[in-house]
Amino acid sequence: LTRAHFIPDALDEITRYLAQCKASIVVVSGGLGPTTDDLTRDAAALFMNVPLVEDALALEKLTSLFAARNVALTPNNFRQCLFPQGAEVLYSTVGTAAGFRLERGEQNFFFFPGVPREFEWFCQTYLNLEKTSHQSSTLLFFGRGESHLENDLAGIEELNVSVGYRAAYPVIELKLSGASQDVQHALSFAKTRTGQWLIAEDDESLSARIGRLLKQRAMTVATAESCTAGGIAAEITRISGSSEWFHEGFVTYANHAKVRALGVLTPTLEQFGAVSQEVACQMALGAQRVAESTYAIAVTGIAGPTGGTELKPVGTVHFALAAPDGVWHRHFVFRRQSREGVREATIVAALTFLLHHLEERLKDYPTLGPYAAEDVMTETGPHESPLSRS
Amino acid sequence: LTRAHFIPDALDEITRYLAQCKASIVVVSGGLGPTTDDLTRDAAALFMNVPLVEDALALEKLTSLFAARNVALTPNNFRQCLFPQGAEVLYSTVGTAAGFRLERGEQNFFFFPGVPREFEWFCQTYLNLEKTSHQSSTLLFFGRGESHLENDLAGIEELNVSVGYRAAYPVIELKLSGASQDVQHALSFAKTRTGQWLIAEDDESLSARIGRLLKQRAMTVATAESCTAGGIAAEITRISGSSEWFHEGFVTYANHAKVRALGVLTPTLEQFGAVSQEVACQMALGAQRVAESTYAIAVTGIAGPTGGTELKPVGTVHFALAAPDGVWHRHFVFRRQSREGVREATIVAALTFLLHHLEERLKDYPTLGPYAAEDVMTETGPHESPLSRS
Repeated sequence: LTRAHFIPDALDEITRYLAQCKASIVVVSGGLGPTTDDLTRDAAALFMNVPLVEDALALEKLTSLFAARNVALTPNNFRQCLFPQGAEVLYSTVGTAAGFRLERGEQNFFFFPGVPREFEWFCQTYLNLEKTSHQSSTLLFFGRGESHLENDLAGIEELNVSVGYRAAYPVIELKLSGASQDVQHALSFAKTRTGQWLIAEDDESLSARIGRLLKQRAMTVATAESCTAGGIAAEITRISGSSEWFHEGFVTYANHAKVRALGVLTPTLEQFGAVSQEVACQMALGAQRVAESTYAIAVTGIAGPTGGTELKPVGTVHFALAAPDGVWHRHFVFRRQSREGVREATIVAALTFLLHHLEERLKDYPTLGPYAAEDVMTETGPHESPLSRS
Repeated sequence: LTRAHFIPDALDEITRYLAQCKASIVVVSGGLGPTTDDLTRDAAALFMNVPLVEDALALEKLTSLFAARNVALTPNNFRQCLFPQGAEVLYSTVGTAAGFRLERGEQNFFFFPGVPREFEWFCQTYLNLEKTSHQSSTLLFFGRGESHLENDLAGIEELNVSVGYRAAYPVIELKLSGASQDVQHALSFAKTRTGQWLIAEDDESLSARIGRLLKQRAMTVATAESCTAGGIAAEITRISGSSEWFHEGFVTYANHAKVRALGVLTPTLEQFGAVSQEVACQMALGAQRVAESTYAIAVTGIAGPTGGTELKPVGTVHFALAAPDGVWHRHFVFRRQSREGVREATIVAALTFLLHHLEERLKDYPTLGPYAAEDVMTETGPHESPLSRS
């Protein structure tokens, strides 16, 4: 893919753009729906200087689809059966919009619906690009800044790959592209140099990696969430089959819920506040006990934008991991982040904490940071000090 | 905004693109970081045919920022202090990258960091576009297909606005643009015609709308989630201050958790299965009782891709709303969706269910569908039949 362009929904703009495209394969996404702002088919006909003609098979498919669903066709639906004369119609089994293909000289223009699920299906079904030996792989890192990662990876460009970094808060993405065997070689190099920060690869997400390790050991994890309010449990259960390692989670947003559901002690809340090491540890131990799980992850923090104090600014989050060998604690301040940013960082940090324990990286890498080059998190408290179980 | 272009991280491509830009204001995002693939500043210098020069103030700011965080500067960080000679340096208080502004004839080129949080700050701080009377507003609809919505809105184009539809599963977005007073007029028109499907507007999200209504009445809501596993609670608590109306949620993924935490009866699970009207209603009533909340929303469904049967295909979800006047039930099948699609649709449908109750729309609009034009959901079961409380 050499270029990507967004064109407004205007007939002349789309037509002009098609005319000036030089690529041998042009994929156009969107504008094939039934509404009046769906102008791609009209622009394609103008561009080829041909009329729009109705395709009988498309009409038949649309009519029977609506009949099967017992829904009336509206007049605008019929526009979806019109195609530029001479186009190859590309029928769909995943939506109401068909696509089409046009040829001009050596160029091939593919017109696909823009609904992401449908677009993906059309690419897989109709875009039979020749397989190449070119490969592109992505590694995700957490807890290390972009410029430090680049220093760790000094020399990787000499392995004949193209290297791209992207700060996609709270993680850093490293994308390696090139000939397959060069990329494989560079991946090994990158993992050796930066493995302690690696949390996911393009073929295995953080949740999938954690799930695989728990499943192998027939272990389970429970969650006890305050500031993320279910976001960690939702992330763990993205993985199909996660009911094998995840049975239950607790969203204890209010203090009285922490007390009732997890057995957090009221005097602890009063003495240390809800956002504290002590409460996080009691939440984790409570969740582990009630859910009868091997592990429990607990988070309590200040997502903001209000509620921060000088001692506990917005972004302060306490993490606790109840494990078979005791309860572990971490403490981050995710600085200068929006409410959503703090919550997203908390989800990744919580799962990373569990991953580190499962991969026995706690001792090898006793600190997670600093991540301060990009100023997104700082470890400020005691961390990973095993406490005795209460 | 008339055009958007994605350019690869290649010096000649960026330079060539800058040279051919005709717009009076060009905003360039990204490529100002410290790593070797950050080439925008080099391309800008080539384009203007000037050298890169170090900015003393930028260097001072960077050095003190790193010192304050107690992090070592790496050599690549110093690249962030280089700017094309003659550029106006645009300093940042939200990250390590400064931006810059170049003039060529009547054109203004703004170069901003690409990290979304920083880009947004630069736009707000440095892009002082004149205020216009132009306005653009978005309405979000759930439960109605795109082509039916367009039919409902027949005649809206005559109000002198430009109208755009976008299917952003599970919702349909309607965007209206034009002169402010025309847009206001069109918004009223659209709400009158399609108000029963409206769930959010650009200045108030679904969660914010629900929060406002609950807060006005000093009411609370609890959640009991199986297939979404915390996603509904996480959505409700996106809103700052949501601790006033949300105290607690239950993520009961396994059957035994439904029994223990919510008091679902084992014989009910055995007779009807976990994905059933009966279990959904017991989950909602249990959550309402345990959390002592005014409302409780419960969902139980088959997110897939495995676990479907002929009677309960993947996408089957039962919703229950425990309210002061009894427990209400809905049943959807979100067809042909990915696991993530089913979960996202379930979150929106669950919150819409509560919204309908809060806005007393249950009786006016007894059915939510059909949504079948785009084949994303079909109501198949009994719905909104108030049951007696168990």
